[in-house]
Amino acid sequence: MAQNIYDDPDFFAGYSALPRSVQGLDGAPEWPSLQALLPDLAGREVVDLGCGFGWFSRWAASAGAAHVLGIDLSLNMLARARQETTDPQITYQQHDLDHLELPPARFDFAYSSLTMHYLADLDRLFRTVHRSLRPGAGFVFSVEHPICTAPSNPQFVTLDSGRVVWPVDGYLREGRRTTNWLAPGVVKQHRTITSYVSTLLGAGFRLTALEEWGPSPQQIEEVPDWHTELERPYFLIVAACRE
Amino acid sequence: MAQNIYDDPDFFAGYSALPRSVQGLDGAPEWPSLQALLPDLAGREVVDLGCGFGWFSRWAASAGAAHVLGIDLSLNMLARARQETTDPQITYQQHDLDHLELPPARFDFAYSSLTMHYLADLDRLFRTVHRSLRPGAGFVFSVEHPICTAPSNPQFVTLDSGRVVWPVDGYLREGRRTTNWLAPGVVKQHRTITSYVSTLLGAGFRLTALEEWGPSPQQIEEVPDWHTELERPYFLIVAACRE
Repeated sequence: MAQNIYDDPDFFAGYSALPRSVQGLDGAPEWPSLQALLPDLAGREVVDLGCGFGWFSRWAASAGAAHVLGIDLSLNMLARARQETTDPQITYQQHDLDHLELPPARFDFAYSSLTMHYLADLDRLFRTVHRSLRPGAGFVFSVEHPICTAPSNPQFVTLDSGRVVWPVDGYLREGRRTTNWLAPGVVKQHRTITSYVSTLLGAGFRLTALEEWGPSPQQIEEVPDWHTELERPYFLIVAACRE
Repeated sequence: MAQNIYDDPDFFAGYSALPRSVQGLDGAPEWPSLQALLPDLAGREVVDLGCGFGWFSRWAASAGAAHVLGIDLSLNMLARARQETTDPQITYQQHDLDHLELPPARFDFAYSSLTMHYLADLDRLFRTVHRSLRPGAGFVFSVEHPICTAPSNPQFVTLDSGRVVWPVDGYLREGRRTTNWLAPGVVKQHRTITSYVSTLLGAGFRLTALEEWGPSPQQIEEVPDWHTELERPYFLIVAACRE
């Protein structure tokens, strides 16, 4: 079972104050990259794995999806998602994605934003998603990039030479990483890009895109501090399809 | 045009003394991973892009390939390859892979080991390779992993905490990197994994495997120093097919 850190009061309070929680998709710098990979959702059945506050579920509904199933483990997040949702075509459900069951060949599109690095059993989830998609359906997800989940101390360091670097260690040692981000003891699973891709291909998907996200020149102009995001990719975005 | 560093006398002397140059494929720790991705080559037409001393070309011939075309830019390497080759089904040719022309639908398998990070125009090469393959043909290549080509100073550093880390910077800034490896001024092209994968998909390939190479437990037992290779992947190995 995944750690339910979003129901920790300190973590939830901190998370709720992030730009992506306050402004929604427009507060998530990787959203334009994700959006560019989305198919036309009009009339489609969509599942949103780790829906959080429901920003994407509502976006999909506004894009004309016939039905959106938003799934999250956190009761805190689902409560706010339900509170902020008026679209009748959205359903929210609480499930642990490590134990999720989905009906076969039900969905036309599956989406997951920054959720899968919390899960213990990616192989099971990818196979579940694959079975639940109709032929030709797409799957787009983002995770923290393995360069960011690998390090024992994931923070930029300044070397004696003055060079600011991202200190990678343990990249090929997959497994639990515990960090203090918004609250102490946040547990994530570090996986290599190899693992994400192999697990996806092994589940029967075809890879259609892989993007290591960095800010665009325009984003850096708007938020100059983001130029450090070019030193290493913070997000990994993957698109696939069931054939 | 790619830099012809292998015809620099100092570089060539240094390269010729490496285990992979003396022992061939058995001296290359990533060879078992590459070999696991190879199709049955019996009776097949094979092209070896950046064949160097011809170790893989000869391996393919010994595996029953009908014909192997080994291509390299370095006259030094081709001279030694020809000297050590007796198999009549191998042909060596000198070409710059940045300007290579190949006949359409000629080959059943394309291979390239640690060559493409020297090339300026990957998109052109991938399209050329795709056209030259028959439907169903495979393409397997290795490159230095982008984590290794990115840094302005690609060497492990020991932080004040005592932690040994691989200092990543400039990962999302693609382009020329000049290092002093075996000789001063060796020019490589840093590309992200995104670029390798997107260029491959854009050329029409289907991705079938992506491996960030690390030593196996058995390899670490045999060469204990290699445990540091688990801190970051040194090679990226990719397999694809033309459909």
